[in-house]
Amino acid sequence: MSSVFLEDLDADTYAAYLRQSTSTVIIPTGATEQHGPHMPIGVDAMLSSDIAAAVAQQTGALVAPVFAYGYKSQPRSGGGDHRIGTTSLSAATLIGLVEDVASSFLAQGFKNVVVLNGHYENYQFVYEGLDKAVKQAHTAGNAGRAMLMSYWDFVDDQTLEAVFPDGFLGWDIEHGGVLETSLMLLLHPEKVDMDRVVDHPPAQLTSYDVFPEDPTRTPASGCLSSATGATAAKGQLLLDAVTRAVSDALISELHLPLPVASRKAN
Amino acid sequence: MSSVFLEDLDADTYAAYLRQSTSTVIIPTGATEQHGPHMPIGVDAMLSSDIAAAVAQQTGALVAPVFAYGYKSQPRSGGGDHRIGTTSLSAATLIGLVEDVASSFLAQGFKNVVVLNGHYENYQFVYEGLDKAVKQAHTAGNAGRAMLMSYWDFVDDQTLEAVFPDGFLGWDIEHGGVLETSLMLLLHPEKVDMDRVVDHPPAQLTSYDVFPEDPTRTPASGCLSSATGATAAKGQLLLDAVTRAVSDALISELHLPLPVASRKAN
Amino acid sequence: MSSVFLEDLDADTYAAYLRQSTSTVIIPTGATEQHGPHMPIGVDAMLSSDIAAAVAQQTGALVAPVFAYGYKSQPRSGGGDHRIGTTSLSAATLIGLVEDVASSFLAQGFKNVVVLNGHYENYQFVYEGLDKAVKQAHTAGNAGRAMLMSYWDFVDDQTLEAVFPDGFLGWDIEHGGVLETSLMLLLHPEKVDMDRVVDHPPAQLTSYDVFPEDPTRTPASGCLSSATGATAAKGQLLLDAVTRAVSDALISELHLPLPVASRKAN
Amino acid sequence: MSSVFLEDLDADTYAAYLRQSTSTVIIPTGATEQHGPHMPIGVDAMLSSDIAAAVAQQTGALVAPVFAYGYKSQPRSGGGDHRIGTTSLSAATLIGLVEDVASSFLAQGFKNVVVLNGHYENYQFVYEGLDKAVKQAHTAGNAGRAMLMSYWDFVDDQTLEAVFPDGFLGWDIEHGGVLETSLMLLLHPEKVDMDRVVDHPPAQLTSYDVFPEDPTRTPASGCLSSATGATAAKGQLLLDAVTRAVSDALISELHLPLPVASRKAN
Amino acid sequence: MSSVFLEDLDADTYAAYLRQSTSTVIIPTGATEQHGPHMPIGVDAMLSSDIAAAVAQQTGALVAPVFAYGYKSQPRSGGGDHRIGTTSLSAATLIGLVEDVASSFLAQGFKNVVVLNGHYENYQFVYEGLDKAVKQAHTAGNAGRAMLMSYWDFVDDQTLEAVFPDGFLGWDIEHGGVLETSLMLLLHPEKVDMDRVVDHPPAQLTSYDVFPEDPTRTPASGCLSSATGATAAKGQLLLDAVTRAVSDALISELHLPLPVASRKAN
Amino acid sequence: MSSVFLEDLDADTYAAYLRQSTSTVIIPTGATEQHGPHMPIGVDAMLSSDIAAAVAQQTGALVAPVFAYGYKSQPRSGGGDHRIGTTSLSAATLIGLVEDVASSFLAQGFKNVVVLNGHYENYQFVYEGLDKAVKQAHTAGNAGRAMLMSYWDFVDDQTLEAVFPDGFLGWDIEHGGVLETSLMLLLHPEKVDMDRVVDHPPAQLTSYDVFPEDPTRTPASGCLSSATGATAAKGQLLLDAVTRAVSDALISELHLPLPVASRKAN
Repeated sequence: MSSVFLEDLDADTYAAYLRQSTSTVIIPTGATEQHGPHMPIGVDAMLSSDIAAAVAQQTGALVAPVFAYGYKSQPRSGGGDHRIGTTSLSAATLIGLVEDVASSFLAQGFKNVVVLNGHYENYQFVYEGLDKAVKQAHTAGNAGRAMLMSYWDFVDDQTLEAVFPDGFLGWDIEHGGVLETSLMLLLHPEKVDMDRVVDHPPAQLTSYDVFPEDPTRTPASGCLSSATGATAAKGQLLLDAVTRAVSDALISELHLPLPVASRKAN
Repeated sequence: MSSVFLEDLDADTYAAYLRQSTSTVIIPTGATEQHGPHMPIGVDAMLSSDIAAAVAQQTGALVAPVFAYGYKSQPRSGGGDHRIGTTSLSAATLIGLVEDVASSFLAQGFKNVVVLNGHYENYQFVYEGLDKAVKQAHTAGNAGRAMLMSYWDFVDDQTLEAVFPDGFLGWDIEHGGVLETSLMLLLHPEKVDMDRVVDHPPAQLTSYDVFPEDPTRTPASGCLSSATGATAAKGQLLLDAVTRAVSDALISELHLPLPVASRKAN
Repeated sequence: MSSVFLEDLDADTYAAYLRQSTSTVIIPTGATEQHGPHMPIGVDAMLSSDIAAAVAQQTGALVAPVFAYGYKSQPRSGGGDHRIGTTSLSAATLIGLVEDVASSFLAQGFKNVVVLNGHYENYQFVYEGLDKAVKQAHTAGNAGRAMLMSYWDFVDDQTLEAVFPDGFLGWDIEHGGVLETSLMLLLHPEKVDMDRVVDHPPAQLTSYDVFPEDPTRTPASGCLSSATGATAAKGQLLLDAVTRAVSDALISELHLPLPVASRKAN
Repeated sequence: MSSVFLEDLDADTYAAYLRQSTSTVIIPTGATEQHGPHMPIGVDAMLSSDIAAAVAQQTGALVAPVFAYGYKSQPRSGGGDHRIGTTSLSAATLIGLVEDVASSFLAQGFKNVVVLNGHYENYQFVYEGLDKAVKQAHTAGNAGRAMLMSYWDFVDDQTLEAVFPDGFLGWDIEHGGVLETSLMLLLHPEKVDMDRVVDHPPAQLTSYDVFPEDPTRTPASGCLSSATGATAAKGQLLLDAVTRAVSDALISELHLPLPVASRKAN
Repeated sequence: MSSVFLEDLDADTYAAYLRQSTSTVIIPTGATEQHGPHMPIGVDAMLSSDIAAAVAQQTGALVAPVFAYGYKSQPRSGGGDHRIGTTSLSAATLIGLVEDVASSFLAQGFKNVVVLNGHYENYQFVYEGLDKAVKQAHTAGNAGRAMLMSYWDFVDDQTLEAVFPDGFLGWDIEHGGVLETSLMLLLHPEKVDMDRVVDHPPAQLTSYDVFPEDPTRTPASGCLSSATGATAAKGQLLLDAVTRAVSDALISELHLPLPVASRKAN
Repeated sequence: MSSVFLEDLDADTYAAYLRQSTSTVIIPTGATEQHGPHMPIGVDAMLSSDIAAAVAQQTGALVAPVFAYGYKSQPRSGGGDHRIGTTSLSAATLIGLVEDVASSFLAQGFKNVVVLNGHYENYQFVYEGLDKAVKQAHTAGNAGRAMLMSYWDFVDDQTLEAVFPDGFLGWDIEHGGVLETSLMLLLHPEKVDMDRVVDHPPAQLTSYDVFPEDPTRTPASGCLSSATGATAAKGQLLLDAVTRAVSDALISELHLPLPVASRKAN
């Protein structure tokens, strides 16, 4: 098979893959969301897709077309849905999207459907969609399984210390910050302009949300912390750590065969 | 006014309250969810309701009837929806419930609608419901506002250290553990049986979810950590800290008058 | 078992109850609706909950957390949804609420789910929710049953004559009138202020509804008939008649064992 | 204008009608529901449509295409949805149907939308649809109004006595009974076969509903009372009484001009 | 059986029909849509209903009550939803309507459900409704089938040439044109006024749609081509061709017995 | 601006673009659908995305992330939803997706939202989504517009003759045939394997659909006509014709400035 992306496969090759007892598809979920003046709007979709491809190479899985739109950006994790550059889905649509696509994959015969999430706000809605799809499949006599994860939950402490030598302040402020920017510098350097990084202190997040959103609480840059300090080398540390840990989780949880490394990610 | 609970008020008293320029209603949201062999199924609803009442006394707000059913219990925060004793709502229903009730309060003239959440899994769905209700109200020319918070996000570090002298291991495993049990020992001691607390190590949570749920990952007790060590005194520390911090947030964010303390919580 | 309210039970006790061949849960459904100047807003929820508890004591059933919000108040039965003090659900949300909760109870193993309704406007929407839940359960191979009733439909003629010695004018105008006030005087006397009862003739109801609602058709009191004449003694007659008749219906229809009387209602 | 049925009008005539300051459309709502061995399945749609036409002739209104499918037949009013011959809508579909059609009429410029209901089970769902349509229209700056009624609620006591000389036993058992059969004998005699009327005592209805439906509770005929005694003369009494009372209500409530009688009902 | 319309049958006759191994119901779907100054608003419903009746006579099928309201009229096929005289359904409602009614027929035991469409815009939404209904029926163990067609897709080339001697310009502009007007002249001549036909060149349709609709693109008549040239004789050619071809398709596809011709269409 | 794809832009550049009086975003819509053994599953998404980019370069528009999943493949246009390799959305989800994304773009300030469709089955559902989004935007005082088109509707007769020298048989059978394959040979030659093209006669399509789908009606290849005869040169003819015609339509309809050609499509 020449690609891990199922959109690149012809139907016969795809059908042959599906006949394997460990057929697994990974759906990357991202967002169309502003990530400050130094990074493109598509960061979440790009990163979840890239990491899914890296994991697919390690595990023999296929990668489905990315969900390029995500749930509304929230001020305490993504700067807020009022920011120009952010184009979002309602809860009902995102739940339906996950339910339909996961159901369709399970009905075709996939043994495992994995959602690899790259936009914090999506998680609970993807959870509902997968829960409905798997229950529905089981009612129809289909024994397929699903997994759901956000990639940053697989960064280990040692990597965190290396990436944030001055101390890690929490995932919530990592919107447009060192984590995402380092990964982008590694994977899409031509789409990052470090000269435009705004150096500001981390956003002071409240312990609650307000409606309507209060635009003054999001730093002018749209980022919740500064990307100063991001490097491609840190991106490599992060990518390696995440790819390894996610792949291990899939192999163990889904009883996949040992890693293969012969397929092309692009 | 003789009660902070609006269900206890007659319509005239309620209407008089609404005419205030700072009229605020707090909706407590909980769940009907197993909390182990030592605590009642209604813990989340009881605690969010009690804390809402305490905050209402400090801030002059009213408390709406609690949402006694919540979103599906998830294995990594509530033991899972497969456990006997857990009766849950789908995402669509919970979103609709919040949207309808918040819209109805805003249409009647409330300046502020606050949701005080006591069940982790609810948060994102309540967010969607409030977002829709407030946008809809604004389209109709109504300038009302809303706030959303989970009460544990207001426990400060000093209180955490006092309550967890051996170190705090994270909110995710605090299902049926020291936090909730201490608060229940303070507020509903007759509903707690410390003799039935199972002493087991904290649950080892995965970094991902699986569908269908794997019952073997939740400790047999249904709790994610042991309540051994819970005391009413710790409950008092927690209640005081949360009540004070939430009240301060409401007063500051919603421009409420200074605290009043003359009303009855029950 | 120390309580008929399932929210007060621990999960082990609840699970033991569920293993009975006649496990039955009663869901009381009410509303948050103005009931005039002399009674609290929560009347419908309080009464359906109290009656459910009385029936549960007679039948060995459990009582689920009350549905404290109901369908929109209608002018010809509840004074109308435009009245301050009334906070309502849309049809879709109420149907979803019933469907989710009843489905969840049936999936846990309850043999019978009973909805005891205390707000006229709810009936048809609860009917749809139960119909969907039971059909869904049967498709999944679950043989559970459901019952639906409004409590006033169990008041017999003899009781009616005793409570309305001057003649009964129909259930439609019994909003905030003698029936509900008498029951409240018996069950929650501290929440009723008979001095504030407005004595006015019964509302002249049209044979049709208009949209938008016409506020001038509802008496200024918000009640559709006067509560003058309500007494706790009448409340006792009503409660006894309803409890007995509803219990008999459950025992006969659901083949429950003969009445037990040993459990605590509060 | 040559017809009261708008489906028979050309668009220019329709547009001219709409420019009147009292433009009113009546939507008849019925069902596709078994009505025993002596009457056709379409009774509810036929009668609501005929009565709407009679009222339209008196009031200058137009009649919209009938809603030929209704909400699920319920055992206590229509014999039940399990009976062969009954084809029904879910709540969501019926609500959507009313909302869409009423909204469309209001947006075109109708001042008044009236729903004349002929199937008991429809009422609450039509109520929700009209409530949503009118609120939506008002948000868009449209001042249209709506009315909702079931035709039997306009039968006066004197007519009742004439039609039921042995005493009237209530509307609930009038499914396939004297009321509907008399009207059909008057309006569609060729579709009634009095020889096939089954003479049985009125159904003994419970005070509650059960799920799944219990087919043994509905008389074998599918009717809840016997049509023996139905005559076209009684049908005339009923039609006259209802037409007059409904027309009066429309004229008074909607400020329509005095009756006109020059248009064709068929 | 005295009628092909099921609304005219009594429940016993209907039940007897259903016991046949080839029981088939045809649902005609139309619209309430302006068709110019020379034809009534109900054209699409009338024609689909008439053709369904003709097919039913040939095939032994029954005809269900017509869907008199359809999906929004689109400018490139029906003149647009902004035209006075057009009263439409949203996608969700139409899908629900088809799903509910088809599901109900399949659950009662019909072997085949056929939708005969007479309004172009309906097709895809009816497709979704039938797809959902049949999948749902199969999940419940019911082997029923469904068919979907628009009647004009059965007009053969020879008939087209006879009806459009100057050349056929495409179905899209046949709104209110020669096809529909000829059929109406045959089937409902009293509802057509050829004196009011506006003779204008065919509408120049764009290759795309715009939102909001641009009223200037639809000819003032509301028709997309002129009905000049329509005759009842052409209507007969069209009706015969369509009835024969649709009947053949049903007989062949659904394995129906050979044509019967003894039943009454009206 | 360095790219026509908005996902590649940083938020500041995007915001600057939005301030233009002719800001226009093109959403390409495709599908994940088998296209035979010689072409990848992602053909529809790839082609709509490529054509959108070409049009964007000519018109100064931006291209939004492609909708990579589409409505259920239908046997008469895409081979059917039962084919392995086809992963589809329900109507409700696709409508919601379009409504949410278009609403979000209009709310951010885009003057024009264009959907360029590349999967036949999507059209009507995208129509509903755009109709709802634009109406909603107008209610909120936003004067934005939308356009909807399928790219093949812009192929002119001269191009058709050049591409199909033996005669064009209709768009319906162009699934996996000469049109799509020629465009892919031009744009993604490395993803096409002409050696695997199956040479078979065009599919004989029925004039109707059946449910459940009948797999025997779709050619074994999954294509509705043979791609034999496809060449990159024909792809260039098609791409040029479509790009020019679509660009002209946008410029004329949306009053865009004259073509610019300075931006990068990839």
